[in-house]
Amino acid sequence: MSAKLIQGGTIVTASDICRADLLIENGVVAAIGENLQRLAPQAEIIDASGCYLFPGGVDPHTHLDMPFGGTITADDFETGTTAAAYGGTTTIIDFCLTDKGKPLSGAIRTWHDKARSKAVIDYGFHLMIGEITDDVLAELPAVINDEGITSFKVFMAYKNVLQADDGTLYRTLLSAKEHGALVMVHAENGDVIDYLIKQALAEGHTEPIYHALTRPSVLEGEATGRAVRLTGLADSQLYVVHVTCEEAVRQIADGRMEGLRIWGETCPQYLLLDITCLEKPEFEGAKYVWSPPLRAREHQEVLWNALKTGQLQTVGSDQCSFNFKGQKELGAADFSKIPNGGPIIEDRFSLLFSEGVGKGRLTLNQFVDVISTRAAKLFGIFPQKGTIAVGSDADIVIFDPSVSRTLSAATHHMNVDYNPFEGTEVSGVPVSVLSRGEFVIRDRKFVGQPGCGRYLRRGKYGSTAESR
Amino acid sequence: MSAKLIQGGTIVTASDICRADLLIENGVVAAIGENLQRLAPQAEIIDASGCYLFPGGVDPHTHLDMPFGGTITADDFETGTTAAAYGGTTTIIDFCLTDKGKPLSGAIRTWHDKARSKAVIDYGFHLMIGEITDDVLAELPAVINDEGITSFKVFMAYKNVLQADDGTLYRTLLSAKEHGALVMVHAENGDVIDYLIKQALAEGHTEPIYHALTRPSVLEGEATGRAVRLTGLADSQLYVVHVTCEEAVRQIADGRMEGLRIWGETCPQYLLLDITCLEKPEFEGAKYVWSPPLRAREHQEVLWNALKTGQLQTVGSDQCSFNFKGQKELGAADFSKIPNGGPIIEDRFSLLFSEGVGKGRLTLNQFVDVISTRAAKLFGIFPQKGTIAVGSDADIVIFDPSVSRTLSAATHHMNVDYNPFEGTEVSGVPVSVLSRGEFVIRDRKFVGQPGCGRYLRRGKYGSTAESR
Amino acid sequence: MSAKLIQGGTIVTASDICRADLLIENGVVAAIGENLQRLAPQAEIIDASGCYLFPGGVDPHTHLDMPFGGTITADDFETGTTAAAYGGTTTIIDFCLTDKGKPLSGAIRTWHDKARSKAVIDYGFHLMIGEITDDVLAELPAVINDEGITSFKVFMAYKNVLQADDGTLYRTLLSAKEHGALVMVHAENGDVIDYLIKQALAEGHTEPIYHALTRPSVLEGEATGRAVRLTGLADSQLYVVHVTCEEAVRQIADGRMEGLRIWGETCPQYLLLDITCLEKPEFEGAKYVWSPPLRAREHQEVLWNALKTGQLQTVGSDQCSFNFKGQKELGAADFSKIPNGGPIIEDRFSLLFSEGVGKGRLTLNQFVDVISTRAAKLFGIFPQKGTIAVGSDADIVIFDPSVSRTLSAATHHMNVDYNPFEGTEVSGVPVSVLSRGEFVIRDRKFVGQPGCGRYLRRGKYGSTAESR
Amino acid sequence: MSAKLIQGGTIVTASDICRADLLIENGVVAAIGENLQRLAPQAEIIDASGCYLFPGGVDPHTHLDMPFGGTITADDFETGTTAAAYGGTTTIIDFCLTDKGKPLSGAIRTWHDKARSKAVIDYGFHLMIGEITDDVLAELPAVINDEGITSFKVFMAYKNVLQADDGTLYRTLLSAKEHGALVMVHAENGDVIDYLIKQALAEGHTEPIYHALTRPSVLEGEATGRAVRLTGLADSQLYVVHVTCEEAVRQIADGRMEGLRIWGETCPQYLLLDITCLEKPEFEGAKYVWSPPLRAREHQEVLWNALKTGQLQTVGSDQCSFNFKGQKELGAADFSKIPNGGPIIEDRFSLLFSEGVGKGRLTLNQFVDVISTRAAKLFGIFPQKGTIAVGSDADIVIFDPSVSRTLSAATHHMNVDYNPFEGTEVSGVPVSVLSRGEFVIRDRKFVGQPGCGRYLRRGKYGSTAESR
Repeated sequence: MSAKLIQGGTIVTASDICRADLLIENGVVAAIGENLQRLAPQAEIIDASGCYLFPGGVDPHTHLDMPFGGTITADDFETGTTAAAYGGTTTIIDFCLTDKGKPLSGAIRTWHDKARSKAVIDYGFHLMIGEITDDVLAELPAVINDEGITSFKVFMAYKNVLQADDGTLYRTLLSAKEHGALVMVHAENGDVIDYLIKQALAEGHTEPIYHALTRPSVLEGEATGRAVRLTGLADSQLYVVHVTCEEAVRQIADGRMEGLRIWGETCPQYLLLDITCLEKPEFEGAKYVWSPPLRAREHQEVLWNALKTGQLQTVGSDQCSFNFKGQKELGAADFSKIPNGGPIIEDRFSLLFSEGVGKGRLTLNQFVDVISTRAAKLFGIFPQKGTIAVGSDADIVIFDPSVSRTLSAATHHMNVDYNPFEGTEVSGVPVSVLSRGEFVIRDRKFVGQPGCGRYLRRGKYGSTAESR
Repeated sequence: MSAKLIQGGTIVTASDICRADLLIENGVVAAIGENLQRLAPQAEIIDASGCYLFPGGVDPHTHLDMPFGGTITADDFETGTTAAAYGGTTTIIDFCLTDKGKPLSGAIRTWHDKARSKAVIDYGFHLMIGEITDDVLAELPAVINDEGITSFKVFMAYKNVLQADDGTLYRTLLSAKEHGALVMVHAENGDVIDYLIKQALAEGHTEPIYHALTRPSVLEGEATGRAVRLTGLADSQLYVVHVTCEEAVRQIADGRMEGLRIWGETCPQYLLLDITCLEKPEFEGAKYVWSPPLRAREHQEVLWNALKTGQLQTVGSDQCSFNFKGQKELGAADFSKIPNGGPIIEDRFSLLFSEGVGKGRLTLNQFVDVISTRAAKLFGIFPQKGTIAVGSDADIVIFDPSVSRTLSAATHHMNVDYNPFEGTEVSGVPVSVLSRGEFVIRDRKFVGQPGCGRYLRRGKYGSTAESR
Repeated sequence: MSAKLIQGGTIVTASDICRADLLIENGVVAAIGENLQRLAPQAEIIDASGCYLFPGGVDPHTHLDMPFGGTITADDFETGTTAAAYGGTTTIIDFCLTDKGKPLSGAIRTWHDKARSKAVIDYGFHLMIGEITDDVLAELPAVINDEGITSFKVFMAYKNVLQADDGTLYRTLLSAKEHGALVMVHAENGDVIDYLIKQALAEGHTEPIYHALTRPSVLEGEATGRAVRLTGLADSQLYVVHVTCEEAVRQIADGRMEGLRIWGETCPQYLLLDITCLEKPEFEGAKYVWSPPLRAREHQEVLWNALKTGQLQTVGSDQCSFNFKGQKELGAADFSKIPNGGPIIEDRFSLLFSEGVGKGRLTLNQFVDVISTRAAKLFGIFPQKGTIAVGSDADIVIFDPSVSRTLSAATHHMNVDYNPFEGTEVSGVPVSVLSRGEFVIRDRKFVGQPGCGRYLRRGKYGSTAESR
Repeated sequence: MSAKLIQGGTIVTASDICRADLLIENGVVAAIGENLQRLAPQAEIIDASGCYLFPGGVDPHTHLDMPFGGTITADDFETGTTAAAYGGTTTIIDFCLTDKGKPLSGAIRTWHDKARSKAVIDYGFHLMIGEITDDVLAELPAVINDEGITSFKVFMAYKNVLQADDGTLYRTLLSAKEHGALVMVHAENGDVIDYLIKQALAEGHTEPIYHALTRPSVLEGEATGRAVRLTGLADSQLYVVHVTCEEAVRQIADGRMEGLRIWGETCPQYLLLDITCLEKPEFEGAKYVWSPPLRAREHQEVLWNALKTGQLQTVGSDQCSFNFKGQKELGAADFSKIPNGGPIIEDRFSLLFSEGVGKGRLTLNQFVDVISTRAAKLFGIFPQKGTIAVGSDADIVIFDPSVSRTLSAATHHMNVDYNPFEGTEVSGVPVSVLSRGEFVIRDRKFVGQPGCGRYLRRGKYGSTAESR
């Protein structure tokens, strides 16, 4: 592995910004400074003049190669991670689904099999917890200590499918506290949503907009508050995924104000798109079906402000792609059969830079924090991932802020036939991307290899002083 | 100015932590990395094995050589900055007092005269605004652009002395917005306090505890809320100094939640001491007379949590020292004549490390942020100050966390005859301290020169993307 | 039915107070005024000098002759209503339990059978809703319109026994809105409580105090907030029974502040007893086992203030009595088997007068409102019940505030072997009590007849302008 | 004074409603019941079939014969109280202005002189407190005990005119607590408003709309919160006059939630008109100049809900009339010179009935409470005033809800040339109005005598159990 010297860039971390050269040796950052050539005369010189050097994005929320509602996501670990790399993301944490009544170890093995020979960037797994049984409890220590899976997801929605009851959530919180893991929740009131969907269908409402109308924000706020209260009672830690609305932000902020260990993630789609997208004609609204759904526009400012003031900490993609043709169309006659999710893994990074930094909503430091650093800290892979610092993996994005480009399914690298941000112009381009010191993307071209991504055994929640 | 190479330390910034060598050239950080000796073979080698390398502390709130109530602070710019350096602080921003009816420029000149030949570390000035007249308005652009004084302090307390009315506060907020400055407030309801003091004295209550009893926390909460509301109306920016209580924290958090640009500072004394100190016998309570006063113990946890969750951003010392003998004693027969303030400039850094990091209340990164980085960003001196990054001033604290020491007036370097933390054992020692690459403290001994500190012309509020 | 003229009393209603005579004819109030003898020269004269004349208490929350956990309440409709009358209560609304899968009409018939020949005062029924099926929906109109049962109870606790899921609660709220009924909830998070109980028992904790420790107030606050949010979504109306804690009060107040139709009831036990009662030795703590449990003392002031400011509106007894010997003892080895509930129906009225009016926490008008009027209005029996006004049923309590008495199982009239307020001295005695103009209690002696109470067909929620 | 028997009406009080006859003897209510003729065979029979009998309105906020800004209100005690009577109001409490440095007794004497020979209904006085001096303190006991003036008004706005500082407000609160009085505040931040007005004028903005734009609701919310906090600190009682906005309502609700004794009044103009009125062309906006100003429409629903849920308790008129011609025109070239206030004393009662009861926002009982009863209780004239009960003054409104009428300056009885509700159709007409048993209005015609109104010596705050 040859040394590389990146010259002329401006290095940005979650707290700092400096003009400096960056020397990479053995896949890690060896030095940052001026005139570093003396340190490694043989190093390959890479010119980054006029560019920012960002730590590679850490996407804490992806669903690749995942079965859902009788179909499977359009992107697997090869196309998904390749697209991620194109976009500037060098680490993902994917959700390993489990089946009730079956060993967790089997599910994890399946997920390893999906990823091992395909991933082009490094990856870890979260584990879904659908029930808490003695068997599940017996397996958890090995999952955490041996597999390095230190975050568990509980669904409060998707009744009769993924939904766990409050007792399960509470016991998961207790176990997480005991073993040093972080509990993640999908916070919507599944019982009521289940009724609202049935009722809407019974009344003959089949269009995509009813997906949003049957999942009102008050039900996300309610479930978020419930999870926050149970976390407080358990004295545990909670990460609320894909926060979309003011009601939920307020519950999270209240919990934090009381001293609870509560964290929240939002997604580009909630920051930038709104409920009116679901009303697009010719079933196009189906492209915008996420759960929780897109909200009224006024929630967007609340979410941006929450990122800025630290009430929300991360931006995940919730990547979960389905083709419009053949997959989203499964719900043509019934909105409840539209596969939930969309392709965001590639554009998350650029959208946040362009709309966040470019429009003055976030500082450069805040951008790096929400797109990379904080997720690495929360999920136990910092400082290996999530920053540009001596000794850290050389996961680097060489980003040219001076050019713009237009997002489109015609040019994106996700294996899906539409882009929810089709036509959106973003400022800035991730020109080249390195993973552990090797180019994955070079001058906008993929130069990696399937399988070159490595599995990340993650540390426990709060295991290092700097990761809390 | 000779190059220096600090080896073996662990560098900590507001977001990162890494084991690396640190090369200093021309007073700035030249490189961070491994095996940097090749870069500067002649560099002086400094061994920092087992030590943290922190950016020098930035103390945003000091009162040196300041007249108050017929006396003058015990510490001037020489003793005060020397003590600061001993403690690990390499930058202060001192308050320049103004007189109503006189030009601001004269007050600034006076403050330069106080500092110029005495300061041993770098320093900037905040400016007090006691009234807004046409003359004051006419002077402000020069103050900001030429003097680089970009923060103005308004007092809502000290009736008939420093107190400004709400109209003045509001106009200052408008001016600050227009010119790019940050408004600071001392938030207590001075009108009511004035009555409570007179009433207490009329009832024959002269003891120090009445200082606290006549300044209840509800009056700080009220004034804080008022300042927050006026800031929102003015669409300006506000920094609330020395926040002491839950009521005030809540007002600040509410404002931030609504998207207002509100920031808050607390001080070690409010995090660690409580109102019972004022009841110490033999007039010893006078040593603990600050305004706002020390509060009931339950406020401390709220303040720590606010720092942790980012509702408060900085920790200043509010250094304002008076000798017990001869100065505090002025109030022996009347608590309202006790000079307000205490000596904290030296121990702020160590107290926050020991009680914050050492007791698990703050991460190492958060410690650096609140003790140094955030103040530098808010007050326009970042990245020159407030971090360890290539190109930044080499203001470095070599800090040994493995040893403990006991705070005491017998050993401290402030020019004052008592220490409010007398007998407190703290973990960690700032062994050596560099300012712009030169030792000021070396192996716990002062090696600097009076006058070697430089005046800092500060940037405007929000002048760089990363400083917001 | 002979006319009666009560002379010399002070009539108190929810808003008024006046010295006047009161003429009763045909069971209703015929006139209020001075020198009424001319109106009915033959009327029996009753001297009420020095006494208050209150409207008879309306107890909106009783469980008489109810099976629970393998036993049955100690008081049936005869002993229960007799005790109620002794205490000054002339109307109760009892909970009719239903069985899932069986017709509601059968349950109602059973409840009529329990009450018909026994009740000595007038009574209505609430109906428990355990599930919402097509059959249940089909029966509701008849229940409301024919039976005059216009309030439905949903349990959010008692997992696997009474607990309904959120979908059922939501559908009940929708039905209630459609048909003009009021939904009542027992708000505790049953899922988590179920786990906490099992866990406590698994750890060998069998004592009564664990009943309280496994039902923390945060779980009542959570469930209350959930019910409030669902009510808002359904645009329906909600009455939260037996509110015990600050967390729940705050949720109710927030909902009302937003304009939601939310009402709340508390009980004497929560206003006056606290969690330490459950720690009484020799299993005596079992006498204080209610669900929700008694709370820490600081909640009491919040509850009183909520009554005073109108955030809570009523005080029910939640009468549900079990003998200490033979019934409470079922839980001697397992706190979860202690029958929940206690005997309060008799003393609710006097406790609220003595502790409310007597101690300055409530005005006389507020006392009447919370003990009688508001429940009558909310549950559709006003102005027939709940006030002293011309045309209203002459349900009158002649109350002497000048004497005191001591509550005790030795003297009370409930069919149960202990009194949770044993030894409590209360000011004021309900000397005589009239129901529809006839004495039930006269000079502290029971003079009524089993079966003289009548069933009340109640009006719909909001059916009259004055009842909202 | 002849007895009167009102037959066929429906009597409504703050808690009750009943069909009954009403016998009046010696100016007070002698009896309520059926067939009362036997009690007073000679009584004059008055037919009230189809009508409500309401207690006469109590208007707690009027300014009659008051100098303001170089002019004087258009209505004096004769025209003002005559108009009030036409509208259904039988009691007013007018504000007695004081001058700093002069004895309170003189001001009170002046106010007696204004009212004595003119008032046609009963009246009391509030007293303005502009400063707290030893002289003022010395006079207060006589004011309260001899004059029966038990409420004091403090202005937080009108800088350099009426405005008192926070110390004065606080001392007034302390005095009120000591002597049993209620403090009233006009809550707006006068300092900032003063600047905003000057600034608007400096920028050439002279139109009426700038009256509203220079008094934003955030400044009312701020001042209200400040007054609430000072009341809490003083453990005193506060009545916030003319609440207009959500910000202020929230502060009041928060204070009440904490157990503070805080009360709030709003006015018909704030419930029904909005800020757009000030934009009416041809200077017509001047007719809608009140302080605080009319607000954006969305505040109206908050105010109605606050009345309904008891967070606000009363509706005053803030009657303060100036002719459009000659008086409002004083501000034609400068909005700050427009006399503040408008004519509402006559229509307050009907507007609240029509828009409150008629539109389902308030129940009949709530209407009576806010228009009459609660003010009587808070200001120490209950049960003499504010209700229909045996022994109370026979201040009765015979109100026909079946007819409508149109409000207009052409038909109103206030001595002013416009009506802010010109053209508004209201349901219901106060057909006849009795004051102490004598007709003042009979069949829509004035039959009273100037000077027939009596001065009310009011009881202390909280002096009777039922008046708190």
